[in-house]
Amino acid sequence: MRRSIATVCLSGTLDDKLTAAAAAGFDGIELFENDLLVSPMTPAEVRDRCAGLGLGIDLYQPFRDLDSVTGDRFARSLDRAERKFDVMAALGVDTVLVCSSVAADAVDDDDRAAEQLSALAERAGRRGMRIAYEALAWGRHVSTWDRSWRIVQRADHPALGLCLDSFHVLSREVSPDGIAGITPGKIFFLQLADAPHLSMDVLQWSRHHRLFPGQGAFDLPRFVELVLAAGYDGPLSLEVFNDVFRQSDPGRTAIDAMRSLIALEDGLTTRHRPDAPRLTAGIRRLPDPPELTGHAFTEFAVDGRSGPELRSALRGLGFAHTGQHRTKPVELWEQGAARIVLNSAVTHPGPAAISAFAVASADPGRSLARAGALLAPAHPNVREPGEAELAAITAPDGTSVFVTHPGDDWRADFLPTGAEPGPGAGLLAVDHLGLAQPFDHFDEAGLFYHSVLGLDHLATEEYAAPYGLMRSRAVANPSRTVRVALTVALLRRGDWAPAVADPQHVAFTTADIIATAAALDLPALPVPDNYYDDLIARFDLEAGFVATLARHGILYDRDPAGHELLHLYTPVFGGRVFFEIVERRPGYDRFGEPNAPVRMAAQRHRRLTATP
Amino acid sequence: MRRSIATVCLSGTLDDKLTAAAAAGFDGIELFENDLLVSPMTPAEVRDRCAGLGLGIDLYQPFRDLDSVTGDRFARSLDRAERKFDVMAALGVDTVLVCSSVAADAVDDDDRAAEQLSALAERAGRRGMRIAYEALAWGRHVSTWDRSWRIVQRADHPALGLCLDSFHVLSREVSPDGIAGITPGKIFFLQLADAPHLSMDVLQWSRHHRLFPGQGAFDLPRFVELVLAAGYDGPLSLEVFNDVFRQSDPGRTAIDAMRSLIALEDGLTTRHRPDAPRLTAGIRRLPDPPELTGHAFTEFAVDGRSGPELRSALRGLGFAHTGQHRTKPVELWEQGAARIVLNSAVTHPGPAAISAFAVASADPGRSLARAGALLAPAHPNVREPGEAELAAITAPDGTSVFVTHPGDDWRADFLPTGAEPGPGAGLLAVDHLGLAQPFDHFDEAGLFYHSVLGLDHLATEEYAAPYGLMRSRAVANPSRTVRVALTVALLRRGDWAPAVADPQHVAFTTADIIATAAALDLPALPVPDNYYDDLIARFDLEAGFVATLARHGILYDRDPAGHELLHLYTPVFGGRVFFEIVERRPGYDRFGEPNAPVRMAAQRHRRLTATP
Repeated sequence: MRRSIATVCLSGTLDDKLTAAAAAGFDGIELFENDLLVSPMTPAEVRDRCAGLGLGIDLYQPFRDLDSVTGDRFARSLDRAERKFDVMAALGVDTVLVCSSVAADAVDDDDRAAEQLSALAERAGRRGMRIAYEALAWGRHVSTWDRSWRIVQRADHPALGLCLDSFHVLSREVSPDGIAGITPGKIFFLQLADAPHLSMDVLQWSRHHRLFPGQGAFDLPRFVELVLAAGYDGPLSLEVFNDVFRQSDPGRTAIDAMRSLIALEDGLTTRHRPDAPRLTAGIRRLPDPPELTGHAFTEFAVDGRSGPELRSALRGLGFAHTGQHRTKPVELWEQGAARIVLNSAVTHPGPAAISAFAVASADPGRSLARAGALLAPAHPNVREPGEAELAAITAPDGTSVFVTHPGDDWRADFLPTGAEPGPGAGLLAVDHLGLAQPFDHFDEAGLFYHSVLGLDHLATEEYAAPYGLMRSRAVANPSRTVRVALTVALLRRGDWAPAVADPQHVAFTTADIIATAAALDLPALPVPDNYYDDLIARFDLEAGFVATLARHGILYDRDPAGHELLHLYTPVFGGRVFFEIVERRPGYDRFGEPNAPVRMAAQRHRRLTATP
Repeated sequence: MRRSIATVCLSGTLDDKLTAAAAAGFDGIELFENDLLVSPMTPAEVRDRCAGLGLGIDLYQPFRDLDSVTGDRFARSLDRAERKFDVMAALGVDTVLVCSSVAADAVDDDDRAAEQLSALAERAGRRGMRIAYEALAWGRHVSTWDRSWRIVQRADHPALGLCLDSFHVLSREVSPDGIAGITPGKIFFLQLADAPHLSMDVLQWSRHHRLFPGQGAFDLPRFVELVLAAGYDGPLSLEVFNDVFRQSDPGRTAIDAMRSLIALEDGLTTRHRPDAPRLTAGIRRLPDPPELTGHAFTEFAVDGRSGPELRSALRGLGFAHTGQHRTKPVELWEQGAARIVLNSAVTHPGPAAISAFAVASADPGRSLARAGALLAPAHPNVREPGEAELAAITAPDGTSVFVTHPGDDWRADFLPTGAEPGPGAGLLAVDHLGLAQPFDHFDEAGLFYHSVLGLDHLATEEYAAPYGLMRSRAVANPSRTVRVALTVALLRRGDWAPAVADPQHVAFTTADIIATAAALDLPALPVPDNYYDDLIARFDLEAGFVATLARHGILYDRDPAGHELLHLYTPVFGGRVFFEIVERRPGYDRFGEPNAPVRMAAQRHRRLTATP
């Protein structure tokens, strides 16, 4: 099917938008009128520019407040429409979106609306054009898809059909099921947008918080199936009004948008419904995401300043330096199944950072084929002859994600130092990575990990941290052997928030955090006594137990079902990274988010008071 | 009256917050529990720190979900409360805020709530403490002030009273009028917050969008009067949850907060109610804001690069270089009553900027006394002997605001160049200044101009610009001879938005914009033909009239009542400034905001295509 995107999804000038849409591989665009009005290109120049980029103009939009008016004003509306038809003819676009009226004085009369839309369609039809009528969720009288469909049926004009927009349909309480029964050929256009569940004015929700499919809470696969069942074979077109996308690099946004469509289509083909194969006959299917079996290693980029700090921290955590890369200044550190790589071959030194991580996949080739089909950029890997072939992709925050096979002997690239990974402090494996995301790419990152690696979204959490509100969303595989917690500030940070307010971290599992804590040779992050006093009051815990936690700087969380987490944090090392140790008691599936502000304040306080 | 602020209003560590509150002159704080929990200071150390800073701890908060539970759980709640009383004793605070329960299983029973609150108050009273009970607007059963008051009356315990929070009261539809009839002494605490009118879930509205008094839409003077009428004489305490303030410099936020309280108190004293003098007997009154009569001059900071560009632009606009400052590299340019000063004595060269503007006041001394009382920073003015004494204050964005008297002969500081201000291009005066505000200080700026200079807030507008959504809020004096339009991006700009996306500008009035446009010797900002095509369709304008507008690059706006604006923009000069010329037809009181995106796209396009 054709894939299109509305220009309103993207930031910049019209030319910025067209360039970005073409580069991401879209077949067409919806031209939002305001983008044309502010452009110095004439409609004919826009047509030529699009043609040169291989883009069709699939829709011109919107035409507002045309119907449901009294006689005189409708005559003027028709004049207005003729002028727009002239513009459409010059653009070479044959379909225009007409929204249901939001005018306070719109008349509540389906017959009149049908009659007026029919008159408009007659004018359009004479010029070989067609009218796609859409019920805005906040339309004055026509605000649901079923009412717009009744009006279109009543008008019964071949140049009049429906535009269905997933946001307008799914944000309302009217069931979308009947969409499958719409007369074939009468859905003229399909617009797709996802959104989080929000309890707010639907107009504001729509204008500020739409997301690309797979980034929100709507059941878009079901919605698209209903539309396909009605015989729709036009473009799948994205129309997303989002405050962040409006001011982000449109090239990046267009790739994110395209990835969302590819993943949505793929999801349609894998749904287990009897008629799914028929509906999705023309839709491309991706290689399934193979099972992931765990974190293979995590790599930190270090330099001459941060390297010694990280080495000392790893030693304190009980890691052994077990290998030295044969050709590069890269060290392997191990403890249990937890493996850390310190890479000193960095070209842009700065604070230490998680530069890469590797996940083990049952079929790395298929993982990478899927990633490629989903436009994940391949990471250029410089490999010497005889070294293991490690392929990687680049995540939205720039981190490289390697995909290895459990049987790969990538460790053969490292010459043994003679040190053996002993029991150390009892760390068993990586529990999760904590990756602070760039502000513009948080929703993109969630979709990336979900679609490319097949990780599920866990719940999104928000919490108040000392330097502003934070949002956290974790992704994980079904067996929970691969977990990544993504965080972002709710507002882009400004001058006041400390420059390195959002460190990255690796969390390790232990079976007995108290024993592990006792075995550490590392300054623990000091946790305030006030925190422990409150813990007793909040959770009805034994004072003796809490005293033990306090002695080791261990924090505590309990979910509403009573599952428990014990965890501790280290200070920040190398300017930007820290470690966490977690003992998940059975059933606990969160990340101790309520304790994150305690950790952030303590790390901040330490930085303010530490002698340099 | 005491002035207090909740620590949750401010960003940073507890110590950052206390320092900021004390520096802004607050008498006390509400200690938000989470700020204590993450602090390494013990409660006794917090008490000492506050005492050292001259701050009282007026309230400890919040104690949640204590009442309306079944027997066993209430016993545990009492244990929890005793632990908190210990903390309060160490802090030296005697009042704790208890919020109405939000628990899904809270019991809907006023008798039980009264009984449990009474039992809690009994425990508190034994320790010399008191309970301030607050109805959260989203409380499970108790969500209105009148119901919380009925429960407090029923409990009838001397250690139990009400906490009234303006947000919780005014966000609901229950009338606040009855507050005046609350038994004297039973309002234990008063929390103040303003908010814009938003149609959204009240919890989210409260947690993200509260503002300081005077920055939102609530009638806080009326609310405070009702509370004073009930005999309240405790602190006026600010409790504002705001996403921006949470991540802004707390020193700045605390000043903004204090200014809001001072202005609120002053507003109380000037209300014309028979009992106002009695209610506000103890409240400080400020000097009234004198009448402003116009813009005296606008100063641009220029350097060797931007200066020539600005001079050429002013010449093109019909200005004459009429004076040269006697001791500084400063030029005076005039046309009609419009006066521009070019100041080359800048210490930090960069793009040209509006560094200062001067307003004429009927009583500059009183204007400055009021500004000082409202904590407006005085601008250090370096004056040579014999030069006019021009006093200025510094606005939140760093612009200096001079206050002159219409009779002041500040122009005597300039040696005449011999050039006379002729008719030029027909520019008469400054219509308004357009000042893009720093993201963190938009609401602060609105309150600053309103409270300090007595300018009224006009409507807030939002519009989609090529690089993201924009918000605009204008302030003006009643006679509309002084207008300032403040703008800000809805989200803090990131890397993609062009570095100088938010230029500043001066708009001049003309009585005949078509004649003025013809007289300009300046490259007009090119306005797309598409804009004019749409104008005809949108406003039913004569094609000939629109062709005239198009010939001169004049834009058009019409408000819903039919009042018209004709205006034109210039390109950006000196890297960051442009000019606007407006012909306001009678009754038009806006700023042509719908045309701002056209201007922004054209200026952007010109920058992309201009040869350097």
